[in-house]
Amino acid sequence: MTIKISIDCMGGDHGPAVTVPAAISFANHEPDSELILVGLQDVILAELKKHKAENHPRLSIHHASEVITMDDSLEVALRRKKDSSMRVAITLVKEGRTQACVSAGNTGALMAVSRYVLKTIPGVDRPAICTLIPNQRDAPTFMLDLGANVDCEPQHLHQFAVMGSALVAATEGRSKPTIGLLNVGEEDIKGNDLVKRTAELLRADHAKGILNFYGNVEGNDIFEGTTDIVVCDGFVGNVTLKASEGLGRFFKATLTTEFKSSLWNMLGALIARRALRSVSQRLNPSRYNGASLLGLRGLVFKSHGSADAYGYEWAIKRAFDAANHDLLSRISATIAELMPHPEIPVSGTETAINE
Amino acid sequence: MTIKISIDCMGGDHGPAVTVPAAISFANHEPDSELILVGLQDVILAELKKHKAENHPRLSIHHASEVITMDDSLEVALRRKKDSSMRVAITLVKEGRTQACVSAGNTGALMAVSRYVLKTIPGVDRPAICTLIPNQRDAPTFMLDLGANVDCEPQHLHQFAVMGSALVAATEGRSKPTIGLLNVGEEDIKGNDLVKRTAELLRADHAKGILNFYGNVEGNDIFEGTTDIVVCDGFVGNVTLKASEGLGRFFKATLTTEFKSSLWNMLGALIARRALRSVSQRLNPSRYNGASLLGLRGLVFKSHGSADAYGYEWAIKRAFDAANHDLLSRISATIAELMPHPEIPVSGTETAINE
Repeated sequence: MTIKISIDCMGGDHGPAVTVPAAISFANHEPDSELILVGLQDVILAELKKHKAENHPRLSIHHASEVITMDDSLEVALRRKKDSSMRVAITLVKEGRTQACVSAGNTGALMAVSRYVLKTIPGVDRPAICTLIPNQRDAPTFMLDLGANVDCEPQHLHQFAVMGSALVAATEGRSKPTIGLLNVGEEDIKGNDLVKRTAELLRADHAKGILNFYGNVEGNDIFEGTTDIVVCDGFVGNVTLKASEGLGRFFKATLTTEFKSSLWNMLGALIARRALRSVSQRLNPSRYNGASLLGLRGLVFKSHGSADAYGYEWAIKRAFDAANHDLLSRISATIAELMPHPEIPVSGTETAINE
Repeated sequence: MTIKISIDCMGGDHGPAVTVPAAISFANHEPDSELILVGLQDVILAELKKHKAENHPRLSIHHASEVITMDDSLEVALRRKKDSSMRVAITLVKEGRTQACVSAGNTGALMAVSRYVLKTIPGVDRPAICTLIPNQRDAPTFMLDLGANVDCEPQHLHQFAVMGSALVAATEGRSKPTIGLLNVGEEDIKGNDLVKRTAELLRADHAKGILNFYGNVEGNDIFEGTTDIVVCDGFVGNVTLKASEGLGRFFKATLTTEFKSSLWNMLGALIARRALRSVSQRLNPSRYNGASLLGLRGLVFKSHGSADAYGYEWAIKRAFDAANHDLLSRISATIAELMPHPEIPVSGTETAINE
């Protein structure tokens, strides 16, 4: 079965110079895919020609006349630029013309436009951003929220746990994945007011056998892979993720500097180059690129804004796999089954965006 | 001038097996130091004898009959174990018999007992934990709070900024260090309610020339060294720090595994061993061990509970340097000068601990 994916070609720091080569490479590797390249027709066509792919049988262009920049306010993204590549790419999902969408654009705008166009799944107040993080075990840690919701109430974190659980069950085939609540200590008495109240909700669901709540986890547990899922508010998640990315770059820079500091060290690096390549590969953030916007009535994947073509291709692959696993109906079904109170009222802010 | 430091020998995962050798080594390297080893006399003496240091001229034992464990509640630490090594070590500072104290014990207990015994500096509602973090520049990043305050109001973060500024001015000789407010984006509109309201206070002080507020910083800026100081609430700070520690261990484990994966890689590692040692040294968390409890009427330093003797010695060194720089009076003077409203009321919880 062919899976169709819409690509917001204009989003991200590099735009079509990254998104188009990534799409070409993915389409070449995945014969069951068909990619619709959304954005400024001339620019995309020029990029396709550069790679001699203007006649690729499974790549087509869908013109969109506007581009949402990193500086555009949500107001501009939502109300003014109605023909933006981002919005058109999402609308193709809404209309059933594609099964998923990928964008490297402004995260806030992507979330707002996705909510506006697609709406949320019944039972979900607020969509969340979930990504995979490498850890010391074989399977990655799924962490959410990573920045969509910076002020959360306990019921929101509870919903993140349910959505994360549904995602891991659907894509990883684990029926009751373990859920950790990110905190400053393992003991129940630890933490701020938000996590203490969230833990009560999760413990109640665990007692009923609905969720597999492991308990509190700490920052280090993310990379130890203590639980399948780590739940936190979007402020903590975003800061933690960006700090980890910063430390990763610091580590890489230190390694490079030291190995280039003398001929002797360079010789060592040359001999052990496979080990170094393997380290670089295991910790390469590009391999983990492609965050899911969970809780929407459509599959939307966010690539890192600064991703290169290799990283962007991973984001497309994640969108393809999710659509291939029929992730959306599985998440909706799991949420309908797990979420005890689908009629939690939506707060003023969300209504404003949703309407 | 001799600097006297009290050492809570019983605290931490390893107790006297780590604290005593660290104290011996520090005393041997620093002729202007005198260390008072607080804890169970017999155990400390046995450890000193093991290292043939029972007659060291600048090491003495001060017996304390009780030990605060990692599992003890604050209630137990504060009300029951009045002769704990931790409390006695802090009391020596209070009584002017030592100029600083070092403990690797339970952070919550250390903060509570320190507040109870020493009280806070006028103008400070809540003490904070501040540590040094390595970054890509030459000078480390000072980050606070790291876990003392998990529920904060804007005036608390504002006070952390003032205390951090005073600390860096005193110990690093920079009169107006830059302050970054940890957030999910650089723009003023980004962030949760807490940081937006804190930013207003910091911008006002910047406009008056009181503080050098850089603006919002993101997680990656901690390791890029964008600002001298990074301010955040204790929940975010603790999670970020522990996640970074976890990622550091993951890096190290990955590097070790790959370099041991074949004889060829082992040969490369052998040839480049200086580079690898240098990487390990630059990123070694032990070198950055020793967090300050800022805002108290006495100098208290916290070592990581799992620190080895090398790491613990760094914590003693930081306490020694702080006392040597007369950090306490400098911080108090700076805070008296900078803090516009010293009479902010203390909330119920803190009063309970302070009384």
